[in-house]
Amino acid sequence: MGSNSFGTLLQITTWGESHGKAIGVVIDGCPAGLEISDEDIRKALKRRSPGNHPLTSPRQEPDLAEILSGVFEGKTTGAPISILIPNTHADSSKYDLVKHLLKPGHANYTYLEKYGIFDHRGGGRASARETACRVAAGAIAQKLLNHFGVSCVAYLAQVENIHADVDLSNLDHIASSSIFCPDPLKEEEMKQKIAEAQESGDSLGAVIGFVALGLPAGLGDPVYEKLEANLAKAMLSIPATKGFEIGSGFASSSMQGSSHNDAFFCEGGKVMTRTNHAGGVLGGISTGMPLLGSIAFKPTSSIYKEKETLSLDKQPSVFHLPSGSKHDPCVAIRAVPVVEAMLALVLADALLLNRSSRLFI
Amino acid sequence: MGSNSFGTLLQITTWGESHGKAIGVVIDGCPAGLEISDEDIRKALKRRSPGNHPLTSPRQEPDLAEILSGVFEGKTTGAPISILIPNTHADSSKYDLVKHLLKPGHANYTYLEKYGIFDHRGGGRASARETACRVAAGAIAQKLLNHFGVSCVAYLAQVENIHADVDLSNLDHIASSSIFCPDPLKEEEMKQKIAEAQESGDSLGAVIGFVALGLPAGLGDPVYEKLEANLAKAMLSIPATKGFEIGSGFASSSMQGSSHNDAFFCEGGKVMTRTNHAGGVLGGISTGMPLLGSIAFKPTSSIYKEKETLSLDKQPSVFHLPSGSKHDPCVAIRAVPVVEAMLALVLADALLLNRSSRLFI
Amino acid sequence: MGSNSFGTLLQITTWGESHGKAIGVVIDGCPAGLEISDEDIRKALKRRSPGNHPLTSPRQEPDLAEILSGVFEGKTTGAPISILIPNTHADSSKYDLVKHLLKPGHANYTYLEKYGIFDHRGGGRASARETACRVAAGAIAQKLLNHFGVSCVAYLAQVENIHADVDLSNLDHIASSSIFCPDPLKEEEMKQKIAEAQESGDSLGAVIGFVALGLPAGLGDPVYEKLEANLAKAMLSIPATKGFEIGSGFASSSMQGSSHNDAFFCEGGKVMTRTNHAGGVLGGISTGMPLLGSIAFKPTSSIYKEKETLSLDKQPSVFHLPSGSKHDPCVAIRAVPVVEAMLALVLADALLLNRSSRLFI
Amino acid sequence: MGSNSFGTLLQITTWGESHGKAIGVVIDGCPAGLEISDEDIRKALKRRSPGNHPLTSPRQEPDLAEILSGVFEGKTTGAPISILIPNTHADSSKYDLVKHLLKPGHANYTYLEKYGIFDHRGGGRASARETACRVAAGAIAQKLLNHFGVSCVAYLAQVENIHADVDLSNLDHIASSSIFCPDPLKEEEMKQKIAEAQESGDSLGAVIGFVALGLPAGLGDPVYEKLEANLAKAMLSIPATKGFEIGSGFASSSMQGSSHNDAFFCEGGKVMTRTNHAGGVLGGISTGMPLLGSIAFKPTSSIYKEKETLSLDKQPSVFHLPSGSKHDPCVAIRAVPVVEAMLALVLADALLLNRSSRLFI
Repeated sequence: MGSNSFGTLLQITTWGESHGKAIGVVIDGCPAGLEISDEDIRKALKRRSPGNHPLTSPRQEPDLAEILSGVFEGKTTGAPISILIPNTHADSSKYDLVKHLLKPGHANYTYLEKYGIFDHRGGGRASARETACRVAAGAIAQKLLNHFGVSCVAYLAQVENIHADVDLSNLDHIASSSIFCPDPLKEEEMKQKIAEAQESGDSLGAVIGFVALGLPAGLGDPVYEKLEANLAKAMLSIPATKGFEIGSGFASSSMQGSSHNDAFFCEGGKVMTRTNHAGGVLGGISTGMPLLGSIAFKPTSSIYKEKETLSLDKQPSVFHLPSGSKHDPCVAIRAVPVVEAMLALVLADALLLNRSSRLFI
Repeated sequence: MGSNSFGTLLQITTWGESHGKAIGVVIDGCPAGLEISDEDIRKALKRRSPGNHPLTSPRQEPDLAEILSGVFEGKTTGAPISILIPNTHADSSKYDLVKHLLKPGHANYTYLEKYGIFDHRGGGRASARETACRVAAGAIAQKLLNHFGVSCVAYLAQVENIHADVDLSNLDHIASSSIFCPDPLKEEEMKQKIAEAQESGDSLGAVIGFVALGLPAGLGDPVYEKLEANLAKAMLSIPATKGFEIGSGFASSSMQGSSHNDAFFCEGGKVMTRTNHAGGVLGGISTGMPLLGSIAFKPTSSIYKEKETLSLDKQPSVFHLPSGSKHDPCVAIRAVPVVEAMLALVLADALLLNRSSRLFI
Repeated sequence: MGSNSFGTLLQITTWGESHGKAIGVVIDGCPAGLEISDEDIRKALKRRSPGNHPLTSPRQEPDLAEILSGVFEGKTTGAPISILIPNTHADSSKYDLVKHLLKPGHANYTYLEKYGIFDHRGGGRASARETACRVAAGAIAQKLLNHFGVSCVAYLAQVENIHADVDLSNLDHIASSSIFCPDPLKEEEMKQKIAEAQESGDSLGAVIGFVALGLPAGLGDPVYEKLEANLAKAMLSIPATKGFEIGSGFASSSMQGSSHNDAFFCEGGKVMTRTNHAGGVLGGISTGMPLLGSIAFKPTSSIYKEKETLSLDKQPSVFHLPSGSKHDPCVAIRAVPVVEAMLALVLADALLLNRSSRLFI
Repeated sequence: MGSNSFGTLLQITTWGESHGKAIGVVIDGCPAGLEISDEDIRKALKRRSPGNHPLTSPRQEPDLAEILSGVFEGKTTGAPISILIPNTHADSSKYDLVKHLLKPGHANYTYLEKYGIFDHRGGGRASARETACRVAAGAIAQKLLNHFGVSCVAYLAQVENIHADVDLSNLDHIASSSIFCPDPLKEEEMKQKIAEAQESGDSLGAVIGFVALGLPAGLGDPVYEKLEANLAKAMLSIPATKGFEIGSGFASSSMQGSSHNDAFFCEGGKVMTRTNHAGGVLGGISTGMPLLGSIAFKPTSSIYKEKETLSLDKQPSVFHLPSGSKHDPCVAIRAVPVVEAMLALVLADALLLNRSSRLFI
């Protein structure tokens, strides 16, 4: 499988550079009969779009996505769904000033080592621009999941030392928060921190939390295709990610088995657990409890401060971003819909795969 | 690809239940010409074997692995390498006492939900016994990597609140430590903690660190097959794992870009970075710096304390482990060679895949 | 892997319906550094385009393919190459007359059974229109192969009972033949037959031959990824194909081992065989001799004669093609560049895969 | 995916050399709840075993296959099913006499070119011995298909110029024929031909036919995963195959569309076709009519007549098989159960894959 594809039965393939003519995604394996429209895709993209977020890059990306195939009379046909997103805003000239330099925290050095060639305009395939395609595909996966009663939510959980309080039974505030924060109080503190970083020309890392509700027990596959293994891969494939946790995550390393094991009980005929340290999976298979996890994002690599570096011919130099280039002070904010999309893609795939687990379905 | 297979060009497929006749692994795609022997496999398995570790399960597993195919006159032929490991110690009778119960922290509930059937003797495919196959396959991957000057090391980095001091330039102590700890001082404290948990019938979580040295720049593939994405999947497929970090991991969420970005410099013609917050990858592709990360393990689920649970017919009950069953108080210890094996498998695969990245190689 | 993708390291994904907005292909895994241009793609598409062939459908398909990604300053970068081909000629109205009927020899019945939904305008994904994408991708694969001294040729080998005489050392006539026939004499007879079928509103089947020259020994993989197995799959995935042969093919069933086995000899240091019944493969791996085979095509299903059929609600009816619809009397003619493309895609993939077969390359 | 694996959701991986310790197969993705036993596997292997067939190699292969995993209390659990078949009869000494020679019609030359190493004892992975593993796995696939009312049959259709008359409504004679011939009259002629070839130290090619009955409409996937494409790959992966046909096959090249298109009609509510030139597939998807095809086998390469060849160091030489080595005069006979197995594996996989084609199942 090519390195630009993701998924087994529901598979996406993305293409396009940040400063090329367009970017796009082909979604293969979506079951026939699902209602989708250009509007569904555009609405999803809008959540990721910079216009919405004063604290994100002021760059305009209308993301006028168009479905080119796979939908007939408003419904999927089982054929591949091709979505094209034009690159309307791609002034590459400012990058010419630094095209002879290795960019600290960026991928131009490693791409050059790998391919011997690099499109110096923007980040090419390493640019976060690629994630718009994930969001477009994720919108379809979410519709598929909704059909089966599953919903996926991601949110900004932590910025520097500010942790949002999260109440899984009330995630409504996320929708109205320009930084996808579930906690109205902490939201302001976070915004303050981000604004400070932005003013100083610096950037901040953050943690994004995710939760899937309504998931049936039995999804995910043993051994190498564990649900959390596929989630970890999905999340670590997002640019700027440095860590992944399911359930109790790294905190579990300091726990004892007697408190970590989740006790089973039954309510209204449904098997549940008193706690959910497992995060909704046991042995790689969903328990039916909320699927919970979090992802660490490093601070945006594009900042306005100088950094020691090398030229392409290995001479000592100093990198600083050309003025006028525009970057998010906290890349994690706009990554929230991307995390949601990857979560939905993994779960929709697991749901389809699970149809072959038993003789009788 | 089946859920019991891992890898793209170097692919392993494992099979066998903890209490079945045998377990085994088929390694496909190993290049021809590599020297390997039964002894290589057995030596690797011995490191994972409980006999070595007073603080691990006293269960005897001689792990008399035998290579059944793919090697001729001491060298790989390019054909699949089948390794069989007999299950010599499989007294399942004690599990009969609890076969009617959901086991808290275990996978029998989710397997039942998925498959409608569960082999109640031991953990079946969810048992850590399966990881012996990974270690056997990893021994071959490590030989392949050594051939190209790459070495893989894992170690016990943290138990409860005790953090080992790690000096990447001196990892020698790991080999002589029965708990794979690189820090002689902290090793004793860790052992003490684990012994206490064992005595009280409880268990502990831990963090395992890993590092690969000698890796060339350019390994790993963009977008969905990023090196860290494949590592995350590999590690989260190990039983009892709850988290994964590459480089600065979750700590990066509290950092600023100006300090997180690693400055480039050149020494002896080699491009290096002053710091290594990236952990050896940029944009999913290796930088040539040490590849660094860590994995969170939950406390062993098998403990000797009671826990609320349900019977298979959903009646309230209490689970406690039959006396005489034997379990590791800290499952992470014996997982150290497993982490090493998964690291080696991911890197060897990336190394082979990289041969197709350019027209000229 | 989705059913609209083909290949392992060099992988294509095609999308788009015959009467949709556009069709396209994403080529993933092409090594960096290969020179390609829009012109290369368009030239390849022109060979398949109906305008060239008086005996093919008069439908105009300018096939103004455009490369949207993956190429920078004239060379591939290792990123996915997205090619878009607009559907400029898509008058679907005439299909409205028969949209309530099962079309004999077509796929609308089976698609309906599978998906419960069918885009009745044209053949959707089952249309030969999809093969334009294969030709576009094949142009890149051929460039890659040419770089390594390998060339791929397909030709019209048989129409009804007329067999072309083929001299592998002189295939020049194919380029100037409007029906891709290598034999100037038989070409005229073939054209005559096809013209007769066309006049009578009927259609003809045919056999296409293929040959790859310059292939090194050692390509292809044992057991399930044999070169001929992948070729067979590639060819049988082309619409209207009913058979595949490698080397002596079905004729080998009537031969004896003593005459079928190809004798080895050496000339100029190169190992060769006196005959080539094997067709250039032994045990699924190339011998270095010309790779030879042929593919059976059924007569075009779209004809102007009546056929018994059923309506979608299973009532007896009669199908006849609306006048004004335009179809090839011998679909195999325009399939010649498609066979060439699939041949090139399989071989280029095998060539890349082969780089991992040995420790030293 | 490794080259020793086959299938998507139902996936097999085979391993082992003809003269190694054992051979085996791992079947992954078999749904839970299917009844299987060692006896099922052994019965299937016996049909392929030489003991049954006076006209096949007198070599004894008891094929005492044993299921090592994946079955609990007589039923599949969803875990991988590992089957081991010991190699009890492996006297390799006679091959020492010819180990310095390229073997005409065999794969030792191409394996050497690919891997630089070759196990000269027997045919290694290229040996037909590997196909015992396919038959073992096929037995499980057939059980799965039987559960859904599908049956798979293969038979000897042609030897030299003798064609069996085949009546799809009565295939009973195959079971009692030692050469799997469905036609009692032609069976004797075929046997006579084969006996003559055997006496003269030569060998014969043949054609095997196959049919699947009871297949529902809708199986198989569009474009690159067409049912016939996967069948073609499956069949061409069997050693000694040179051609594949579905339905009318190569005969379709001489037909006209008006006679080739199969007319639809309805009987007892079931959609059927008057003829079945399509062979049970339209657009790569099953029609519900019998799935029909045939496969060309070359004459056995191992014969007792001399052939010009080269030594490994490229010096002219003559190959002749050591006396005392034992080979089938017509390799196709024992390939009949192998064709059946591959047919079953492709169809069972398609059946599982089809569960994800629609939103509602």
